[in-house]
Formats: sequence, structure tokens, C-alpha cells
Amino acid sequence: MAHLRARDVGERGLIDLIWSIAERELGTQTESPLPHPDDASALRLPDGRYLVLKTDMFVRRTDAPRGMRHSQMGRKSVVMCASDLAAKGAAPQAFMHSMGVPPGYPSKRILELVGGVISACNEYGISFLGGDLGESKDLLVAGFMVGVADRIVRRSGASPGDILAVTGPFGDTSSAFEILLKRRCAPPRLRRRLIRRVYQPRARVDLGVALASTGWVTSSMDSSDGLAFTLHELAKSSGVRFVLSRVPVSRHAEEFASIHKIPAEELALYGGEEYEIVLTIKPDAIGKAQDVAERYGGRLLAIGKVEDGSGVFLSDGSTKRPIEARGWEHLRRR
Amino acid sequence: MAHLRARDVGERGLIDLIWSIAERELGTQTESPLPHPDDASALRLPDGRYLVLKTDMFVRRTDAPRGMRHSQMGRKSVVMCASDLAAKGAAPQAFMHSMGVPPGYPSKRILELVGGVISACNEYGISFLGGDLGESKDLLVAGFMVGVADRIVRRSGASPGDILAVTGPFGDTSSAFEILLKRRCAPPRLRRRLIRRVYQPRARVDLGVALASTGWVTSSMDSSDGLAFTLHELAKSSGVRFVLSRVPVSRHAEEFASIHKIPAEELALYGGEEYEIVLTIKPDAIGKAQDVAERYGGRLLAIGKVEDGSGVFLSDGSTKRPIEARGWEHLRRR
Repeated sequence: MAHLRARDVGERGLIDLIWSIAERELGTQTESPLPHPDDASALRLPDGRYLVLKTDMFVRRTDAPRGMRHSQMGRKSVVMCASDLAAKGAAPQAFMHSMGVPPGYPSKRILELVGGVISACNEYGISFLGGDLGESKDLLVAGFMVGVADRIVRRSGASPGDILAVTGPFGDTSSAFEILLKRRCAPPRLRRRLIRRVYQPRARVDLGVALASTGWVTSSMDSSDGLAFTLHELAKSSGVRFVLSRVPVSRHAEEFASIHKIPAEELALYGGEEYEIVLTIKPDAIGKAQDVAERYGGRLLAIGKVEDGSGVFLSDGSTKRPIEARGWEHLRRR
Repeated sequence: MAHLRARDVGERGLIDLIWSIAERELGTQTESPLPHPDDASALRLPDGRYLVLKTDMFVRRTDAPRGMRHSQMGRKSVVMCASDLAAKGAAPQAFMHSMGVPPGYPSKRILELVGGVISACNEYGISFLGGDLGESKDLLVAGFMVGVADRIVRRSGASPGDILAVTGPFGDTSSAFEILLKRRCAPPRLRRRLIRRVYQPRARVDLGVALASTGWVTSSMDSSDGLAFTLHELAKSSGVRFVLSRVPVSRHAEEFASIHKIPAEELALYGGEEYEIVLTIKPDAIGKAQDVAERYGGRLLAIGKVEDGSGVFLSDGSTKRPIEARGWEHLRRR
């Protein structure tokens, strides 16, 4: 322990160690309505509702793909928090941020970034509360969002028999990263559509809150760490096994995969920065939940079921093949 | 504008520009219970109380004086936010943070830092909610605190006739910075006491909340940017003049000043990182407010009065000498 560096322990390892200190010192963590490692934190309000709180940090050097505009970085720092709140059933109310700014950074770019924050707040009906600004070597935005929920959805409530569902198909962002990072090519129209999903993600805010408020959602998590990783986390938190009948691949990812002769399912499973919601629904409610999703202009794709056991598997009817738990992690070198 | 760098505009200049964008885009800033440039933000709760929110960033490279332990950095990131909330009358409820961590940083030190955060939360009765952890070149903590207030105190409510007061004397931290940055000497016992005020500041949480709840406080602000600067900001926000009858100098700063033959009043006025509350009180309530302060184990030192006009002056009975508005600002080279 004494000689380990942050990169040896990794983001998640450090966060787990932090919570073990907190539990030793405070011993109150079990009382939290959304205990670690859930996606956000919550406090009970006097009226019985929940105040849900989230912080997420966007660091330009590690989190902004090539070509991302500053306004898009600002926008994304709002979307990241809003998505986690929505996955817990909370309607975002207010956003504030601490920004780290290198002294030599062009002030025009900083204001473009904050312009992106403000217009995203506008888009999602969130109050912009400003914040702090300090000096750092990296340009970064530590975003903080609070929201209110009548009913919160944890990672841990899935039961055998529940239906596994997602709010949209996957694979656009990993196709875009293949273009941006590995310089793979794509026809201009496809390229534009894929890359836009990385530069301009949107959070399923209204849909997430509407679904949570029905009471039919038994567990839920946003998919920003990638579909496979999210499925594993959700299954582990609930102490169940997920068996997928299909991998939800987007039309554009299918097209990109067929051009490059790469497996489309891999693109959908091992991406990231895709802000859908992965959730489990009571078995008798999936039809009604899909109706709710349509009323909110969205979709709810049933992709499998919850079983006794552990792990995540893809079934073709006769055989079950395990889905690997790969995903992105800060501070971790692979 | 096009070619200006962050350091040319400075922290406060950038924050003012950000608010001008927000006002143009949202036009709602005037509706806020604590509008910019107040020390924290606020939202009205359904029960009529206020949710008060604050974010403040601690960057090791610029904000940690030589010799500060990691646990003390963590502690200070809590104190910074708690002090601002208390100055607005809000009792801190919960703290979370986004941490930036260099990949090669010893994980032991990171956990010491978080240990300091957690024990400070314990000390002030604040729930620790954890947060995010990402990779950055600087070790930094973006702290985020929420609290609840029955009654909030703005920077802008002082009226001519009010009494100007502070919750303690000043000068310890600037004496400590003379020792740490300019390597001035002091007898060991004095040195230890002064430096401790920089390494282990405490926020006037219970006192600030108790005073605000009386309804006698007309304006209030925490003094972390230095006494002189705080007085100027408070006078400007309220559109009044402050006339001090004395500069509240601490006993240890007097002792340090006399050793080095430097003016003690300068140490008290032009310091910073001193977490007292500067406030104005209705003229007939100062005695009662001082009783309240004593009940909370604190003090309330009357140091002057509020008059029509602008600026901050020190009066010796016959003449008034202006007090300069110097203070610390991030990103600004002086």
C-alpha cells in the first residue's frame, strides 16, 4: 500500500478505499438512501422526497476527444450529471461548477465553455448557479447537480423474473472513437452522425424521471461507462444474473461495422460515453413502461431477463456465452 | 477580448463575464435569493426554507502553503465551503467532492487527504457523500456543500446606522504567511500558534447560523479573501460606506508585528484565508447579538459603523483615512 501510486490502484479502487475509510470513521453509510457505489447520492427531505446530488469531473486533456468544441465540453459536463440523476429518478434542478483554468488559456474559450454549460442548463430546464474558478494546469470542469425525486431507483433492486431493458441502442460512440482515435474512415453523412453522438450527447432526463415515477423500475443505472460494464455493475449490485437475448446495436453502428468488417456487437458492448439508461422492470409492467417511454418521445428496448445467479450472458436460445466486463476507467493503464 | 488570456482577465473578471452571459441567455439571475456575486447560491424549498449551495476548489500547487499535510488540505476544502454557508445563515448538511489526481501520486497521500475531508465532516456534523475522481496534472479537490437556512443573509442589506462587527480578530494568517513565504522568524510557541491557523482553519458555523437566525444581521460575508477586501465587497454590495473605529488585530499578530517592527494593522487588513464572519447588525441589537455569540462560545467585536456614501475608512476620531481594497485573487499576476 505504502508505495502504490494512484495509477496502480485506479479510480474505482481509490473510491472503494475512500468508502472504507468513511465507513470506519462515520459508520453511517448504510443509512444513505443511495449508498456507494450507486451513481449519485441522496438525502431525505422533510416532505419525504429525496434530494439527489451528483458530482462529475470533465478534464479536457483526458475527456475531450479531438475536435470537440469548448461549448460542447461545457454542454457535456451538464449532460454527465443530468444523466446520472435521471437514472436515479431525480429531476435535475440546479447546476454549479468549479472550473480549473490554466493562466495562459484564452479567456474566449473559457467563456465558450461556460456558454455551453448555460445553454445545456437551458435545454434541460436546470437553474445555472455559477461557481468557483481557480488556477490549474488542466482545463477542467467539476460539475455539481442537485435534483429532486419522489421515488429513487437504486442499482440494487433487480429480482429474478424482471425484464432487462435499455432506453436506446448502442454502438454509435465506439464507432465514433474508432474514427477519432484510430482514424478509421466512414462516408461523410455516417461519420457526421456518429461523431455528433460523442460531441453532443444528450441525457434521457424526462424519460428516466417518468419511468422511475411509475414504480415499475426495480434497478437502474446510466450507461456512460459502456453497456457491458454497466450490465455487470447492475447485476452485481442486485446479486443476480442477466441473460441477454440480443445486444441492442444501433443502425449506424451496424453500418459502420459492416464497412470495416468488425463485429457490431463488440461496438455496442464495449463503448462508453453513451448516455442511455439500463434498467430492470417488473415482468408484468414492460408493456405499460414501453407506452410511457413512447409518450416521452423515447423507446424502451427489452433485451433480456433477470435470473438467479451472477454474471452477464448472451443467449442464442440454446447456449449462453459470458459477456466480458471490460470498460473505461480513469487513472488505469491497460 | 479575442487575444486575452485567463491571467489578463483574472478570476473575478472571468466570473463577472460568465454572469453577463448567464443573464443574457437566461435572464433569471435577478430571481435568485442569493444573486451573483454573493458567496453562495440558493434555491427556495417548498416549505419556504432555502437550500444553500457552495462550490470551492482547493488546488494543492496554488492553495497549500509549504508544510501543509494532506489531511489538512482535505479538512480545509470542507472548512472553505462551510464558512461561506454559515456566513449566509445556512447550516451545512452534506459535502461531496470531485478530486483531480495525478496518476503518479502516492495513493496513501490521497487517502490521507480524504481522511481529512471525512474527519472535518464529522467535526461539523456534515454528511460525507463521496464523489468523483479523475486524472489531472494537479492534485485538487472541488468541494461542493449544501445546507439549509430558515433565513438567509445577503451581502447587500447593510443600512446607514448599522453596526459593523466581526466574529474574531485578524492577522494570524498573514503573520503565518510572513513566516512560511518570507521565512521570517518567530519564537517557537508563537510560530506554532500562527502557522496552525493556516494549516487548521476552522469555520464559524454554529455562530454564523445562530446570528443569522436572529434576524438582526443585515449583511454578512466570510473573510476568506482578507479583511480589507471583504469590507470593500460588503460596502459595495450594500451601497454604503464603512467607517472603522479600530482594526481588530489579534494578540499573536500584535506580538509578531512588534518583533519585526511591522504595522500590525496591515497584517490584520491584508491577510486572507482567515475564516471569520464580517457582518452588519441593526443598531439596537448589537448587545443582544453579542450575548448570542457568547452563548455559542464565540465573540462579536464591534469595529465601526455603516454610513451613507461609499468606500471603507479608518477613523481616529478626527480624521478618516481610506483603507485600500487589496486582496488575493486567483489567476491574477500583480
